[in-house]
Amino acid sequence: MTQNDSNILSLFLEQIKQMKSYEEALGVLYWDLRTGAPRKGMEVRSEVIGNLSAQLFKLSTAPELGEWLTELEKPAVYAELSEINQRLVTETRKEYDRSIKIPPKLHQEYVVLTSQAESLWEEAKEKNDYASFELYLDKIITYSNQFIDLWGVKEGSRYDTLLDAYEPGMTTAELDKVFGGLREKLVPLSAAIAASPHQPKTDFLKQTYAKEAQKSFSLFILKQMGFDFAAGRLDESAHPFATGLNPGDVRITTRYLIDDVVSALFGTIHEGGHALYEQNISKDLIGTTLATGTSMGIHESQSRFWENVIGRSKPFWNRYYKDLQQHFPNQLEIPVEDFYRATNVVQPSLIRIEADELTYNLHIIIRYEIEKLIFNEGVKASELPALWNEKYKEYLGVEPENDSEGVLQDVHWSGGAFGYFPSYSLGNMYAAQITNTLETELPNFWELVEEGNLLPIKEWLTEKVYQYGKLRTPSELIIAITGKPLDPDHLVAYLEKKYKDIYKL
Amino acid sequence: MTQNDSNILSLFLEQIKQMKSYEEALGVLYWDLRTGAPRKGMEVRSEVIGNLSAQLFKLSTAPELGEWLTELEKPAVYAELSEINQRLVTETRKEYDRSIKIPPKLHQEYVVLTSQAESLWEEAKEKNDYASFELYLDKIITYSNQFIDLWGVKEGSRYDTLLDAYEPGMTTAELDKVFGGLREKLVPLSAAIAASPHQPKTDFLKQTYAKEAQKSFSLFILKQMGFDFAAGRLDESAHPFATGLNPGDVRITTRYLIDDVVSALFGTIHEGGHALYEQNISKDLIGTTLATGTSMGIHESQSRFWENVIGRSKPFWNRYYKDLQQHFPNQLEIPVEDFYRATNVVQPSLIRIEADELTYNLHIIIRYEIEKLIFNEGVKASELPALWNEKYKEYLGVEPENDSEGVLQDVHWSGGAFGYFPSYSLGNMYAAQITNTLETELPNFWELVEEGNLLPIKEWLTEKVYQYGKLRTPSELIIAITGKPLDPDHLVAYLEKKYKDIYKL
Repeated sequence: MTQNDSNILSLFLEQIKQMKSYEEALGVLYWDLRTGAPRKGMEVRSEVIGNLSAQLFKLSTAPELGEWLTELEKPAVYAELSEINQRLVTETRKEYDRSIKIPPKLHQEYVVLTSQAESLWEEAKEKNDYASFELYLDKIITYSNQFIDLWGVKEGSRYDTLLDAYEPGMTTAELDKVFGGLREKLVPLSAAIAASPHQPKTDFLKQTYAKEAQKSFSLFILKQMGFDFAAGRLDESAHPFATGLNPGDVRITTRYLIDDVVSALFGTIHEGGHALYEQNISKDLIGTTLATGTSMGIHESQSRFWENVIGRSKPFWNRYYKDLQQHFPNQLEIPVEDFYRATNVVQPSLIRIEADELTYNLHIIIRYEIEKLIFNEGVKASELPALWNEKYKEYLGVEPENDSEGVLQDVHWSGGAFGYFPSYSLGNMYAAQITNTLETELPNFWELVEEGNLLPIKEWLTEKVYQYGKLRTPSELIIAITGKPLDPDHLVAYLEKKYKDIYKL
Repeated sequence: MTQNDSNILSLFLEQIKQMKSYEEALGVLYWDLRTGAPRKGMEVRSEVIGNLSAQLFKLSTAPELGEWLTELEKPAVYAELSEINQRLVTETRKEYDRSIKIPPKLHQEYVVLTSQAESLWEEAKEKNDYASFELYLDKIITYSNQFIDLWGVKEGSRYDTLLDAYEPGMTTAELDKVFGGLREKLVPLSAAIAASPHQPKTDFLKQTYAKEAQKSFSLFILKQMGFDFAAGRLDESAHPFATGLNPGDVRITTRYLIDDVVSALFGTIHEGGHALYEQNISKDLIGTTLATGTSMGIHESQSRFWENVIGRSKPFWNRYYKDLQQHFPNQLEIPVEDFYRATNVVQPSLIRIEADELTYNLHIIIRYEIEKLIFNEGVKASELPALWNEKYKEYLGVEPENDSEGVLQDVHWSGGAFGYFPSYSLGNMYAAQITNTLETELPNFWELVEEGNLLPIKEWLTEKVYQYGKLRTPSELIIAITGKPLDPDHLVAYLEKKYKDIYKL
């Protein structure tokens, strides 16, 4: 590498580090806003966040960054870069091109529009008034279509351009295939479950369960999973989340419901799964934009693996039920088998975030199909409520009584996050496929869970997934781990096995 | 004002707002570091802080900022500015000139040196090894002398240039006068107290006092003072502090000692006093660098007013003692008079931060006299331990057994904060002088305290002090409130009255 190229590489890496500093500072500010920042300081704090974000955007779209990228992409130069720097160049180029293609004025209009729309959505949902939100939703769709035009469309499906932001490389063609396979199996399975005479009892889950004991048990389970409290913390917030500020500072939150013994617990395990990913990214990636999860889908695979595959399994409760009982003396006097079945009730319902592990995927497929219609077929906001209700009836056998429990239930569209929903089900599918390999490569996998020896599982996932951060794409990762591309059959097989047992089908 | 000047004013105000955004973001990051940020994230976080600080320094020393100032300072332009903008120009000019006079390389060397020295000081203090620290202290003194040369010296006293950074306009000449007056009265008063046969009993203060009850009582008192919990919060940290991020977000911390019933309480009231100042700065100053306390001395006057004048007064405990007793059933069965006297024990001691309200000032005077010798007489680091011990013997009648409890006890010098110490006693003097006026202007002042009606006192201070932020200088403020400049006699009179009663002199 020439002296000049070596200088350019240093400037490039320094710029990335600067960008990363702003991202981390903004991460702390957002965490703070959601975990107890005083209300009256919010207005000024929003401006601070706006100013820092603008500075970050300026760094990310700086003309010199484009020039450095062009130089580093020259084959002779690129070939001499380390693997990490090569990927950094590729990733930065992708982000850079996406960002500079949007005229700053358009970007700013969009930021203002979506921030207004989020408040309006909240009001519309509360008042069950879709009409007041419809106009804004159409505007957001129009902007998203403009972005698609500016970013460019590959091979015909406009929706692919949006998908790519959350799950790099994912296409409508592939999702049609995997979601099709999933829907075909899950709709009848869900119906068979509903018809089973062996419905679990769940009433005992709803008593008063002291918050302090819930917290103490959640912390205990996080420790068992290998969550590193010297590199993270657990707080409370209205909507639980995980945020990886850097691998040495990964924070999660939960929300304790005192009339539910498992709600906060499964929430904590879920966010804990996200956190294990972020805490175990290789030290070599620190200070680069690769020090984060590779996609929303892979991230979600880790939260769902820990929450559902592990946390809602029989071996897990065979080991930990007695600890839970000790935390709530005289409150859980039913057998572990009944407890396990109660935490795995399947019940088609209207609200996604309250759905069980099985029907959850049908909620996602509905949203996916609607988003496709919007961007590939030009469906308008006015048509969405009817479309929504029809699909809920068809796939889940339930029908919303009003739009608040229907098309207005999720925040995503008001923020313009079209293409995000599929990540949730991709997470379930990745998790099942990875579990399938795990069961072969750690042959005593379920014994480890039953012994409460969860650390080897964390180590295995670190080796296969966590350490790489964004160094591998989702498809590279899933092929390297499991030997083949994403395959929905693993999720189907996992769900069939689990629920045929629980519902004695 | 011409269109051009009006544009310049906008650019200037926008730059100030940007600087303020960085200050606020850094404020949140520091608060976070001190209230529970995970240890393993610190290294990366330090870099983030370094990058943001560098950006702030760049904004504060931007050549265009200098050009805008020059234009706005032209008499015809300046005359047309609002009062706030005039003061903003003056303040910014002062900071700007201080900053640009230091060559960036020198500034960076100094930042590295003092950050090393702080760690070294900590080690030296722990190991009682002044020799290992002496070389660094000499270096820091040399840098400070270079800064004095670069900043310039007015009227002969080199130390004045350092004082001005913490207490604008304060001089050695004035401090010699006020501290002289103070020392002359306090040394004999302290001796008379020590000789009194009427020493308060204090053993009952030291029992096990449950942390939760201490916290609940501290929160109760903060509410009584008018601390706005929608514009602030109370957390825990190893060293209590207050930080005003913006007037709508002012955070304080405390540290609960379970074997001491008043330590955390008086700490909380102290920081609460700082917080009332920051929460009640006028909305008109938000987004400008004037939205903060006008000087360290005035800030300290407010924390000490609430902690000592109010919190350690008899009327206060006549009102609140029964609440304290209720928080600790069966633990405080002594009369209120004894409790009041116990919280006001005077005892000459070696450690400043543990000193009582009276002898505290002698600790400060010793540091002041030593700092003057360093910068005005060229005294070297090697001479400080002996000097320190002599002065402790002379003023307080006690002598350190080693340097850890002597010259090594405070962090300030390792960070180069020469000129800071006087603020603490200035705070006591300002507080006493303001109290004197308060007693006249709110004639039922002590009755209000005895009734637990503290809000009118907060309102009076808001009107006289808090609302102005940095819009008035300390001396403008004290003259506007009390009709005369700083006068140590008020503190002397206050202390004599209080302690002659307590010790029956």
